[in-house]
Amino acid sequence: MKMIREKVAQAIEILQEKKIDMWLTFVRESGTMPDPAIDMVIGQHATWQTAWIICRDGETIAVAGSLDVAGIEDNPAYGTVVPYVQGIREELLAVLKRKNPRKIAINYSTDSVMADGLTHGMYLLLTSMLEGTKFAGRLVSSQDVISALRGRKTAAEIRSMKKAIRLTLDIYNEVTGFLAPGKTERDVADFILGRVRDHGVELAWDEDHCPAVFTGPEHAGAHYGPTRRKIEEGHVLNIDFGVKIDGYCSDLQRTWYIRRKGEKGAPREVQRGFRVIRDSIQLAADALKPGAVSWRIDDVARSHIVKHGYPEYPHALGHQVGRAAHDGGVGLLPRWERYGRLPYGKIEEGQVFTIEPRLPIQGYGVATVEEIVWVTAGGAKFLSKPQRSLYLV
Amino acid sequence: MKMIREKVAQAIEILQEKKIDMWLTFVRESGTMPDPAIDMVIGQHATWQTAWIICRDGETIAVAGSLDVAGIEDNPAYGTVVPYVQGIREELLAVLKRKNPRKIAINYSTDSVMADGLTHGMYLLLTSMLEGTKFAGRLVSSQDVISALRGRKTAAEIRSMKKAIRLTLDIYNEVTGFLAPGKTERDVADFILGRVRDHGVELAWDEDHCPAVFTGPEHAGAHYGPTRRKIEEGHVLNIDFGVKIDGYCSDLQRTWYIRRKGEKGAPREVQRGFRVIRDSIQLAADALKPGAVSWRIDDVARSHIVKHGYPEYPHALGHQVGRAAHDGGVGLLPRWERYGRLPYGKIEEGQVFTIEPRLPIQGYGVATVEEIVWVTAGGAKFLSKPQRSLYLV
Repeated sequence: MKMIREKVAQAIEILQEKKIDMWLTFVRESGTMPDPAIDMVIGQHATWQTAWIICRDGETIAVAGSLDVAGIEDNPAYGTVVPYVQGIREELLAVLKRKNPRKIAINYSTDSVMADGLTHGMYLLLTSMLEGTKFAGRLVSSQDVISALRGRKTAAEIRSMKKAIRLTLDIYNEVTGFLAPGKTERDVADFILGRVRDHGVELAWDEDHCPAVFTGPEHAGAHYGPTRRKIEEGHVLNIDFGVKIDGYCSDLQRTWYIRRKGEKGAPREVQRGFRVIRDSIQLAADALKPGAVSWRIDDVARSHIVKHGYPEYPHALGHQVGRAAHDGGVGLLPRWERYGRLPYGKIEEGQVFTIEPRLPIQGYGVATVEEIVWVTAGGAKFLSKPQRSLYLV
Repeated sequence: MKMIREKVAQAIEILQEKKIDMWLTFVRESGTMPDPAIDMVIGQHATWQTAWIICRDGETIAVAGSLDVAGIEDNPAYGTVVPYVQGIREELLAVLKRKNPRKIAINYSTDSVMADGLTHGMYLLLTSMLEGTKFAGRLVSSQDVISALRGRKTAAEIRSMKKAIRLTLDIYNEVTGFLAPGKTERDVADFILGRVRDHGVELAWDEDHCPAVFTGPEHAGAHYGPTRRKIEEGHVLNIDFGVKIDGYCSDLQRTWYIRRKGEKGAPREVQRGFRVIRDSIQLAADALKPGAVSWRIDDVARSHIVKHGYPEYPHALGHQVGRAAHDGGVGLLPRWERYGRLPYGKIEEGQVFTIEPRLPIQGYGVATVEEIVWVTAGGAKFLSKPQRSLYLV
């Protein structure tokens, strides 16, 4: 709850900066459909329709069903709790009349998942409640508010993320000793899951793909679970994995090479592929500064890879990380239809990004490394100790 | 996945019955915002924008980002998988042109949470993609489809629910031996959680309120977690709790009385309150038949309680249970604003409801019992062995 109060205080500052009078998170049965704003500035679920309100003047208000009220009164981040029994409309309108907000931000966004927690049915319900009042024309998207709030990490948030990153890299170190020809992707994943359980932490995302383990040429690619495919000599192997500590995520990839009998190091073409990935990450990190435009950072890494004769990676260079592994808002994004307007957004101080290019090495597998960097006034700092050379098995 | 295939087959029948040509579940990062339709007819998450399509003619199609495709090709419920890289629009429109649906159901509903998985941002995205095509005017709500699909339980679903109900009642039996003055609500909750772990099953809802334990007069009421309040002699105590087995939930409440020294049974007023609750449940169950109108069933129990001089319960009489403890759709609902049009809906064969009235017994606590009933052609059948008398400690 301490983190929630800190982020609510930060939200109030952001509302002042963006000149938005009220931020309304409107939910019901939020355990079933968890608006991502809940984890940031609310910290609990409610069953009935609930209006969680943060005002530019610092007041925080929850309008909630009578059965949810006792739980909500314990929430130190919400000073005013207004109960209702039969319907929320009357009490919600009374709050709006009292505060008279000229701009009311609600959680919808075509581009950012993290700012799109309002369902379409709840949107229709809200607009029908406001129909005929002066507030009907005052709704705006909370995308800018949420993007700033999730992006600008507090010192406490960075500390939690560093813990998650450190543990992930420690586990990767142990993995190097575990890898051997004959073991399967599934074996490697189980080894990692065992270490996660030993440490009593959560995974950063769905266990189906966390960790993701890929060995050798022509494997299933990203967003796919570990299979019974066996590690063989001459494979390039990579893992994508993260943990969540104190509610904050890591998300890191590393690449290994499984030496064949008699090999001291990796073959030249494997080394070359890895170096191109490593250097593209460094170039992107060098370009990543407050004020830089999103798509240009992606372009730095993408161009470097294409210039060296490899196909471009079929995804974005990176995304923000925080409470969610994919924390939304501006990313390091190509100008593709699926990213909407986000690639034209600017990088802000305090944001934390992954940088995760990939390229195929014909006959061996995929080279892919994912680092985490923090944007400071002076430029990007690596929060993860970067992988500078292939890990050899 | 077997259950998913069974429900997809049922969905196709329902589309035929409702004369809807296509049911489109449109999601992105569904691990973060899990459209409730996913658990029923999809069974996996995807990262990029994904269109999961079920057609009235039986074809099932997934239009998905290239990185998600490998995982989706393993899904036996979706026969056609169409990949895209930069944006979904073109491939999605190609599918629509090929199938030429006159009615496309999408997941939004002002009244039903379970049919409201489409976010407002994704709705805007979808309508912008369809703009200028003949499909723009063909979108309808999937509420009727989802309501029928979740409501009409298959034999396999009923079997799983019976398992969850049986285990819950077994644990309640053990609780009776554990209860004693001096123990706290928290102690009781921990005992139950220990038994749940022993059985290796999941809770039916959020651990914050599952189990919910309330002892004595003037406690915090429903939707509140167990506290350090101690059980005392002369308390009425109740618990609300459920487990999930094979993906299906139970949700049951029971009431105990903690005898004072020298008491053989509960005081007359406690017994009277319990009887009124018990009888109101039986009366509601007797009235619960296919074709009955939702609010009238609530009214049967509510009137019985009020007629006996108790205040009416500040919530609905019951809700559907299934994959979710609150499974959405028609419930046993009063005609209150917050329930929208649902109280005017009709009961269908195959639906499973809780019946859960409550009343306060001045100076002792709250009497509340929650049973689960299954609507068959011949009327409602109790899936839970009903609590016919107070449990005495």
